[in-house]
Amino acid sequence: MSTQQFSSSLLENAVNEFAKLPGIGRKTALRLVLHLLKQSEFDVEVFGNAFIQLRKEIQYCTVCHNISDTGVCRICSNPGRDHETVCVVENIKDVMSIENTQQFRGLYHVLGGIISPMDGIGPNDLEIESLIQRVQDEGVKEVILALSTTMEGDTTNFFIFRKLAPFNIKTTTIARGIAIGDELEYADEVTLGRSILNRVEFTNSFK
Amino acid sequence: MSTQQFSSSLLENAVNEFAKLPGIGRKTALRLVLHLLKQSEFDVEVFGNAFIQLRKEIQYCTVCHNISDTGVCRICSNPGRDHETVCVVENIKDVMSIENTQQFRGLYHVLGGIISPMDGIGPNDLEIESLIQRVQDEGVKEVILALSTTMEGDTTNFFIFRKLAPFNIKTTTIARGIAIGDELEYADEVTLGRSILNRVEFTNSFK
Repeated sequence: MSTQQFSSSLLENAVNEFAKLPGIGRKTALRLVLHLLKQSEFDVEVFGNAFIQLRKEIQYCTVCHNISDTGVCRICSNPGRDHETVCVVENIKDVMSIENTQQFRGLYHVLGGIISPMDGIGPNDLEIESLIQRVQDEGVKEVILALSTTMEGDTTNFFIFRKLAPFNIKTTTIARGIAIGDELEYADEVTLGRSILNRVEFTNSFK
Repeated sequence: MSTQQFSSSLLENAVNEFAKLPGIGRKTALRLVLHLLKQSEFDVEVFGNAFIQLRKEIQYCTVCHNISDTGVCRICSNPGRDHETVCVVENIKDVMSIENTQQFRGLYHVLGGIISPMDGIGPNDLEIESLIQRVQDEGVKEVILALSTTMEGDTTNFFIFRKLAPFNIKTTTIARGIAIGDELEYADEVTLGRSILNRVEFTNSFK
């Protein structure tokens, strides 16, 4: 489609803009633009402005560094949540994934990445110092580490764990094991091995 | 993802807007929005405005009804093209498909649909009258019908063919046959049958 002849440069521009997005090819971009052309002028204005406004006005929560409309995000400012439990995640997508489970009522702390010397990301590039500050100042009782189980994730876990050691709080990590619905046959050995080591008592009451 | 808890209503809005597009689910929408968040404010403004401007300023060529930035489109106003041959297509996507082949140097005529009584689309809803007018006024020598081979396409072809009968011009349709690279074994009988009836003389010079 590289030689595509557009009869309109406005159309060409719009297609090019869509095609810059990850995973959107030129054919899909064209399909999306033609869809927009069928919408009302008002709807397209709302569409375009949603992104412009988001990018212009977005803030990051001063407490947890999650994306927010205000200085302190919806979660951190919710008095109904457990302010003594803080779940440490890599990015805002992880916050959403955990929120979707509706199983966690505590607060978050978004690191903005994980320690990765290969990519030149050290502890000082992440929101680790502010996490320690929160633990120190705000009566946090438990820090849950919910980072990925990669070498970088493990390094970051360990770094934070050591930093938190002087404080008298509980540090936990999320459970790793065989996913619900998965068959043992297809699980990798490390996961299966850990799921046996970290076995839990069988009860009938799953909450 | 329907219960997704967004910490920002700006983010939620932007995701909702993307998710309105055909073929874009909420997960993809979120991925795209997070990508935009990483771009500069200027780039996102360019992105959003591309669609707003397109929708606001887009025109349709007064000659061929293709999408255009100006009253007469790039193709119709190009003196290098063959103004005596007009290819009739259903929509602007078809124009692009044919332009991509770089095999056609004539002009187009975009009907804006095909006759489809089931959808309540009659000849008067399409740009058929203006096609006849073009043939009458502008010295068109050949009309190529390039509509889909559905019942509706055939009906439209026949309708236009009858309308053009009084004028002394050539009316053709694009060749139907086995696609290049396809195996006979998998071709449907109608196509295969027609490709035998409409066989062409074998030459060594494929242009």
